[in-house]
Amino acid sequence: MKKNMIVGQSGGPTAVINSSLYGVITEGLKSTSHIDKIYGMINGIEGFLHDTVADIRKEEHLHQLDLIRTTPGAYLGSCRYKLPEDLTDPVYQTLFQKFSALDIGYFFYIGGNDSMDTVSKLSKYAASVNSTIRFIGIPKTIDNDLMETDHTPGYGSAAKYVATTVREIATDANVYDNLKSVTIVEIMGRHAGWLTASSILARKFKGDNPVLIYLPESDFSTEDFVAKVEASLASTPNLVVCISEGIHDKNKTFICEYTQSAGVDSFGHKMLAGAGKYLENLIRERLHVKVRSIELNVCQRCSCSHLSRVDLDEAENAGIFALHCALQGQTGKMITFCRNRSIPYELSYGTVDVNLVCNREKSVPSEWITQDGSDISDSFIDYVRPLTQGYVELPTKNGIPLFAYRK
Amino acid sequence: MKKNMIVGQSGGPTAVINSSLYGVITEGLKSTSHIDKIYGMINGIEGFLHDTVADIRKEEHLHQLDLIRTTPGAYLGSCRYKLPEDLTDPVYQTLFQKFSALDIGYFFYIGGNDSMDTVSKLSKYAASVNSTIRFIGIPKTIDNDLMETDHTPGYGSAAKYVATTVREIATDANVYDNLKSVTIVEIMGRHAGWLTASSILARKFKGDNPVLIYLPESDFSTEDFVAKVEASLASTPNLVVCISEGIHDKNKTFICEYTQSAGVDSFGHKMLAGAGKYLENLIRERLHVKVRSIELNVCQRCSCSHLSRVDLDEAENAGIFALHCALQGQTGKMITFCRNRSIPYELSYGTVDVNLVCNREKSVPSEWITQDGSDISDSFIDYVRPLTQGYVELPTKNGIPLFAYRK
Repeated sequence: MKKNMIVGQSGGPTAVINSSLYGVITEGLKSTSHIDKIYGMINGIEGFLHDTVADIRKEEHLHQLDLIRTTPGAYLGSCRYKLPEDLTDPVYQTLFQKFSALDIGYFFYIGGNDSMDTVSKLSKYAASVNSTIRFIGIPKTIDNDLMETDHTPGYGSAAKYVATTVREIATDANVYDNLKSVTIVEIMGRHAGWLTASSILARKFKGDNPVLIYLPESDFSTEDFVAKVEASLASTPNLVVCISEGIHDKNKTFICEYTQSAGVDSFGHKMLAGAGKYLENLIRERLHVKVRSIELNVCQRCSCSHLSRVDLDEAENAGIFALHCALQGQTGKMITFCRNRSIPYELSYGTVDVNLVCNREKSVPSEWITQDGSDISDSFIDYVRPLTQGYVELPTKNGIPLFAYRK
Repeated sequence: MKKNMIVGQSGGPTAVINSSLYGVITEGLKSTSHIDKIYGMINGIEGFLHDTVADIRKEEHLHQLDLIRTTPGAYLGSCRYKLPEDLTDPVYQTLFQKFSALDIGYFFYIGGNDSMDTVSKLSKYAASVNSTIRFIGIPKTIDNDLMETDHTPGYGSAAKYVATTVREIATDANVYDNLKSVTIVEIMGRHAGWLTASSILARKFKGDNPVLIYLPESDFSTEDFVAKVEASLASTPNLVVCISEGIHDKNKTFICEYTQSAGVDSFGHKMLAGAGKYLENLIRERLHVKVRSIELNVCQRCSCSHLSRVDLDEAENAGIFALHCALQGQTGKMITFCRNRSIPYELSYGTVDVNLVCNREKSVPSEWITQDGSDISDSFIDYVRPLTQGYVELPTKNGIPLFAYRK
């Protein structure tokens, strides 16, 4: 008996989250014997609660399908909405009434660990009311911090963006190589340093910039930092240092929190600066060298300028695989990536109980961080490099990438 | 009679300044009947004064020549050094003694208006001592603010970077389109708004983001700004605004200067924030909406990620043309771009007395800025678009762009 499917996106965007959307939709369109209508939640489960649902088979969406595949951000829009812990909360009854009204048989949610919490709760409630709706989570996050999977869609392209950008910044830093200078690059990652670690790919040779790399997985000592920077300047006059936004000291106080004493602006707001800005001032104060800090902006999560072909294809395949798993009757599962080998790179797709993923975070293993916490070990390169490979030619108009968008 | 040539780079880097270096060197290598040795000044005229000169015909440089063409930054290194106004200053005698010692017949300097000042002074001194050395300036700057030329090498690629990045940022801003938000993007350009103006290319349709664009060519009113933002939010809930770093009020006070009252950080340093940060706080204070500011980092001047084929080729041709002009006996000149037409785009190369260029700045004409100073007129698009066209395939290794560098 035919049923309808619905798909939503949740959490922060990535460069390839729409490729997963493309995968699950195109495969849904093919599955004519099981799937009738294809709905999209506008702004995730939160939007769905307000009945903002799109019929994806409408021409306005279908004619953009190919474009959606390489458009960064979230085509359906996103949300940060946590369902109540108490499954007797009326919101669940409301949601399932809406599911029935739309004759939903298959529910797909593309997101990170918070989004998997939504999949977990909905599948648990479904079991408690003997609903036959299948709930499948499709992973995405530039943070690469999901448990039970080798890596996450979105990480490879973000890592490639960071590596390329840091190499460009290092080139810029070398322009006045007759002066000593320090450039501190702050990279996204509050609790996991996967993205910051990828900056090691920017090194052109051993000892090249970024000479120092700090992750939130190690306690950060400002004194060790100043000493390391001073020592590194001797061999690298234009030093580039990469740090995660979430670096913290041994008391688990975020370094950026120390900037909150920085005073208020003319409106009386606290001037909140990042860890990079704090360390910039620290180095200037202590070493009296030219120093600047650069906070990589949202493009590290939303740029399609350095798409990894491997990442884009895996994201699409995750969507395709999710649809097959749902049709096979699986529910309460998240799609996982299992790496068979790194060289040559070989991947297979699987599923895992979503409860093993939601509300947990995967850190960078200590064996990939050097003893003193100021660098990444080369063995990490074998892990990350395959995920950043391959070029994707983007559709462009007048030289600027062409993006899909909801009219 | 054969002579030697020397080339240097000066001022801030661009994505294609090395393409001009590639052009003048490769053409010099071909001119075997007139040119013998090819020298490179390391860190411009300042480095030359300290005898940091490279023999470009050495294998370590020659084998990287093709790579140099697409490497951003300044392969020879740069400087910000102003020669004394007084031509009787002993530094000129010193310089020309060094020129003679190296048997220099041709001097090429790749840079902006400060660098053209160096070309001007050296050529004037040469005339005063009857030196036969020919001094030619090769323009470069992402600011596009040089007089007497339609545009400058480096601007097209920077404009393409800004347009693409702003479109990506706008896509990211739309992810939570159930909430109102303002994103302020601060773009380089202290006195001229050419680069900020190029953000108009990010618009996918009329009325699309960036809805508001502010250049330093117009006086900025914070009251008008708040009103414009509030009005624009009605039709564009996720508003993106682009501003030049150099926007100023009618008293010519830079908006960023108002942040200097922002207080001191924990080291007692003034917290200097940009105009974007100031306006972010202003909008939060006055309109109580979600607001963030993004300062585009140095990549807008050093990224090769959005190279314009037109820009790269024109930069190389400027180097080639410069060598021919020198061989023809021209001196004290800068290479100029003369646009014959925009559609189809057609360019010819010329020269101009460097004294008409140095220490002057070209602003965006008022007819390309809307009456209220909050937007760019569509006619500007016909000017800028041809400069951003064409794709350049970069040499890569393991998926990351390969850059040339001095060993």
